[in-house]
Amino acid sequence: IRDELLAHFKACGMPAEAQEWYAKNLEYNVPGGKLNRGMSVVDTAEILKGRALTDEEHLQASVLGWGVELLQAFFLVSDDLMDSSITRRGQPCWYRVPKVGHIAVNDAFMLEGAIYHLLKIHFKKEPYYIDLIDLFHETTYQTEMGQLIDLITAPEDDVDLNKFSLKKHSLIVIYKTAFYSFYLPVALAMLFCRIPTSYILPSSPTPVAPYDVAKEILIPLGEYFQIQDDFLDFSGVPAQIGKVGTDIVDNKCSWCINTALAIATPEQRKILDENYGVKPTPAEKEIAKRMAEVNKGEEQGYLGEAEKRVKAVFEEMGLRKIYADYEENVCKKLSEMVDKIDEGAPGQEGVLKREVFRSFMSKIYRRQK
Amino acid sequence: IRDELLAHFKACGMPAEAQEWYAKNLEYNVPGGKLNRGMSVVDTAEILKGRALTDEEHLQASVLGWGVELLQAFFLVSDDLMDSSITRRGQPCWYRVPKVGHIAVNDAFMLEGAIYHLLKIHFKKEPYYIDLIDLFHETTYQTEMGQLIDLITAPEDDVDLNKFSLKKHSLIVIYKTAFYSFYLPVALAMLFCRIPTSYILPSSPTPVAPYDVAKEILIPLGEYFQIQDDFLDFSGVPAQIGKVGTDIVDNKCSWCINTALAIATPEQRKILDENYGVKPTPAEKEIAKRMAEVNKGEEQGYLGEAEKRVKAVFEEMGLRKIYADYEENVCKKLSEMVDKIDEGAPGQEGVLKREVFRSFMSKIYRRQK
Ligand SMILES: [Mg+2]
Ligand SMILES: [Mg+2]
Ligand SMILES: [Mg+2]
Ligand SMILES: [Mg+2]
Ligand SMILES: [Mg+2]
Ligand SMILES: [Mg+2]
Repeated sequence: IRDELLAHFKACGMPAEAQEWYAKNLEYNVPGGKLNRGMSVVDTAEILKGRALTDEEHLQASVLGWGVELLQAFFLVSDDLMDSSITRRGQPCWYRVPKVGHIAVNDAFMLEGAIYHLLKIHFKKEPYYIDLIDLFHETTYQTEMGQLIDLITAPEDDVDLNKFSLKKHSLIVIYKTAFYSFYLPVALAMLFCRIPTSYILPSSPTPVAPYDVAKEILIPLGEYFQIQDDFLDFSGVPAQIGKVGTDIVDNKCSWCINTALAIATPEQRKILDENYGVKPTPAEKEIAKRMAEVNKGEEQGYLGEAEKRVKAVFEEMGLRKIYADYEENVCKKLSEMVDKIDEGAPGQEGVLKREVFRSFMSKIYRRQK
Repeated sequence: IRDELLAHFKACGMPAEAQEWYAKNLEYNVPGGKLNRGMSVVDTAEILKGRALTDEEHLQASVLGWGVELLQAFFLVSDDLMDSSITRRGQPCWYRVPKVGHIAVNDAFMLEGAIYHLLKIHFKKEPYYIDLIDLFHETTYQTEMGQLIDLITAPEDDVDLNKFSLKKHSLIVIYKTAFYSFYLPVALAMLFCRIPTSYILPSSPTPVAPYDVAKEILIPLGEYFQIQDDFLDFSGVPAQIGKVGTDIVDNKCSWCINTALAIATPEQRKILDENYGVKPTPAEKEIAKRMAEVNKGEEQGYLGEAEKRVKAVFEEMGLRKIYADYEENVCKKLSEMVDKIDEGAPGQEGVLKREVFRSFMSKIYRRQK
């Protein structure tokens, strides 16, 4: 699939340096993640069809999966640049690679452009081609809206906890993450399996709107996933989650701080105001660096004093218990919604299947990294 | 139309700050240009229909026009950031506005996203909806490819004239400018007027492929427009072109330098190698600043010594004459192509009209700014 993009590029008469550059951009930024999002298009399609895909179907479903991964790469490359992040997936962020710099902005665009180029090649003749495109557009726009709220709510250099709230956190998470990571792959697979926008099953005269049903489950599921991510950033140890949590130091609009703000006493609030988003002092950085050297470069998650004080408030409030309660609660609610889905006759094609959602939930529930 | 975007934004439950931010982004970056590209969609549609548009038609054609302007805004906002430019259309570049900074990247995305949102609202029910989208996608991708070649060919901080050539200049210009500025508006108007991809006229049994005909004229016309822009950057005085030419100092892959490289003697080449893309010295900048102060802030286009030496080589080679010859030549060729277009019966609808191209050419031919 990558070769297809490059072949087209060459056919346009692009010079060799540009071809090489684009190849590197794709290689560096698109694979390398867990590919969960992309894979789930293929998995969902198999569940919906109730059988393995043919080779031809598998190719098409994979193109949709890579579309999701390309969209994610487009967001991550630009997000890292906007956030001045250092590393991504264990390598330097693309914009920090020598000679790349701000060219990363155009490279991100080209990752996005690749989606529509691939869709055109593989789906132009399908009746649902336009639906695929509309869905990608809508999801992209939603993610950009979420990114905007996030960027203006939590600028790294201007800490103001008054801008935060659980409501805003929920908006950011839903728009910035849930739509593209959860609803998009499933809805793509549904379009691919020609699930109509509405159908009637024998059990009830009321028509089912399967895309709405999917959205109603997947958006809260995506929210739960991100809340879990935020919680692990606070509670996880590096050896377990595979990275050092930096949300507190980075002034992130995370579920933890928003929950804490909602229940803080005036004393606790004061500690949060004074310590959230505060970078470690040079002396603290020095210690962290030396500790890392001693441990053969492995990051140990050494904390500055400000970060320690924030974490102490979180513990004092019982954030772990609040999270555990939330997790049980939301999973119970989502399970019930899934159980209520009407699958029609056994083996019936073209309708929603409960297993689509169960498979997502089992991957997420109580995950540790 | 802007209000439509904002209304949707509000309907999504975006917080007030985000609504305000998006409003500012649209206001600051979308109007303010000459709106040539956007206007030409409406103008072309009127020529093709041979009559004034109805109110409803006018609204739809304007939406397409704003689509082109939004696309341009998306490119300019990100181009300025990638080029570290200072001003655009007489105001600071968006990324340099206080508090904006790198958020400009996401703002650029949202300008692009707005295009597809508007298309969906106004064209979803039209049979050519998908063609509009494919055309915007293709043009966007082409422009991004052109941008990529430009960025890796002429990085501001690594001057290497060996990377330049007239062939590469032509590629950059065609991909980066001609497709979106010239072919896109006309092809949009053609789709809007339901001009089919192929038709047969009484005068000949061979089918006409009107979109190819348009492309064959508009791409060289766009190339000519950019070559003119490059030439004016060198030859124009600020009072005439309304800006100070900076291509030489900025190591731009301009028609002037590429033409010069193609015919330079070894001595001239040496001067170009040593002086092209060389920034003025601090002392020279100081003089320019003081001259600007004396002249009430108006830029006088004071040249550093390196720039002066490059310009002297250009003059010595007779670049003005070469340009004048090129201009006459290309205009003659394009006029002939336009004259050959078969318009069918007088007043016939749904076919290409010569006036579409003549109107473009008359706006460009021998323009001074
Ligand atoms: Mg980030
Ligand atoms: Mg971010
Ligand atoms: Mg996180
Ligand atoms: Mg520029
Ligand atoms: Mg540029
Ligand atoms: Mg110019």
